[in-house]
Amino acid sequence: MVVTVRHRLETSGQGDAHDLTPVLTSALVDAGLVEGIATVAVVGSTAAITTLEFEPGVIRDLGEFCERFAPRAGNYAHHLRWGDDNGSSHVRAALFGPSVTIPFTDRSLTLGTWQQVTLVEFDTGPRQREVVIQLMGD
Amino acid sequence: MVVTVRHRLETSGQGDAHDLTPVLTSALVDAGLVEGIATVAVVGSTAAITTLEFEPGVIRDLGEFCERFAPRAGNYAHHLRWGDDNGSSHVRAALFGPSVTIPFTDRSLTLGTWQQVTLVEFDTGPRQREVVIQLMGD
Amino acid sequence: MVVTVRHRLETSGQGDAHDLTPVLTSALVDAGLVEGIATVAVVGSTAAITTLEFEPGVIRDLGEFCERFAPRAGNYAHHLRWGDDNGSSHVRAALFGPSVTIPFTDRSLTLGTWQQVTLVEFDTGPRQREVVIQLMGD
Repeated sequence: MVVTVRHRLETSGQGDAHDLTPVLTSALVDAGLVEGIATVAVVGSTAAITTLEFEPGVIRDLGEFCERFAPRAGNYAHHLRWGDDNGSSHVRAALFGPSVTIPFTDRSLTLGTWQQVTLVEFDTGPRQREVVIQLMGD
Repeated sequence: MVVTVRHRLETSGQGDAHDLTPVLTSALVDAGLVEGIATVAVVGSTAAITTLEFEPGVIRDLGEFCERFAPRAGNYAHHLRWGDDNGSSHVRAALFGPSVTIPFTDRSLTLGTWQQVTLVEFDTGPRQREVVIQLMGD
Repeated sequence: MVVTVRHRLETSGQGDAHDLTPVLTSALVDAGLVEGIATVAVVGSTAAITTLEFEPGVIRDLGEFCERFAPRAGNYAHHLRWGDDNGSSHVRAALFGPSVTIPFTDRSLTLGTWQQVTLVEFDTGPRQREVVIQLMGD
C-alpha cells in the first residue's frame, strides 16, 4: 500500500531549517500503516532533507560549516552562465541529497529521541517549498 | 510490484557526470506504475548518485568543491596500502552516497524542473558503470 | 512483503566503523525475498550509514577528512547551549545521512565487490547503536 502526502511550506532563505517530523508522524497515523518505509523528498535542487537534532545550536553549526566549505560569496561557474547568485546552494544541496528514507515499525518511525527529519534551505532567498512524503508498507 | 532495470554506461573519469533522468523516466513509463518510489543506485564505491541541476556550471562547481575538500593529489592511507591512486574517489563517494530515492505519483517523478538524477564519477580514470533502477509501487 | 530486523552493536567512538553487509545479507536470506529494496538506518543523530570499501585505509582517510572539515575541537554553538562536546558529530552525521537504500534482485544486493554497507560512528565516545534493516519486496 502506498500513501502520498504533499506538504507546502515557506522558507526564509539560506540556513533556514524546518522540522518535518510532526507532519510525517501525522501522515503515518492517518495512513494507518504498521510496517514499512517513509520517504521524504524536497522538490528542487537547492534544498535538502536530512535528519539532525533539531535545536538552534546544531542548525547554526551546520550553517557555519556550509559557509566554510561552499561560501555563499564564492566564484561559481553557475553564476557566470546564468546570472544566478546561488552556486553555493547547488553545491550544498547536491552534497546533502534531496531525500531521506526512514523505516517504521509498530506504527512508529525508527528515529531517535533527538533525531528529527529536517528540510534545510540552501537557496539565497525565501522559497516556497514542496515536500513529498510517501509511505509504503502494510 | 517491483521492476528492476539495469543500465550500463561509460564514464570519462573524475568529475564526469551523467543525467540518468531520461532512462529513469523511460523505465517508469515501461513499468506502468502509478504511485511509489524509484531507487537509483550505482554499483561500486567510487561513484555516487544525487540530484542536481544538470548544467555544465553546476557540474564544474561541484568538481572544484570536491577537489578542495578531498584533493586528488592528497596523501591517502588507501594509496599506501593498496598502491591505488583513488583515495579521493573513495572519500567523495562515501560522502555523497551510492543511491537516491525519489517518489513518483500520477506516473511522474516528483522532481523539480531543474533537478536531474545524476551519476557523478569520482574514480580517477574512465569506468564502465552499472546503475540499478528499481521501481516499487502500484 | 515487509521484514524488519533490528541489530545492536557497540562502537568505540568517533571514527569507528562497522561493516553491516554480513548482517544485511543474512537478513535477506532469512526473509526469502527475491526482488526489492533494503533500507539500512541507524537510530540517532550522531552516526551515519553509507557504503564504502571497508578497509582500514579508506576508514582512516574518511576520519582525517572529517577532522579537517568539522574538527572535533572546533567551537560549536551546540556545545555552548547544551554543555555537550559532540558538535562535530552532529555536523558530520547530518552530512552523511542516517540511512542508505540498496536494491536487491535475484536474492542478492546490488553492491560491488569492494562496496560494503557501513555504520560510521561520529560521536565522541563509545555508544550502543541500534541499526534497523528493513527489506521490502516480493
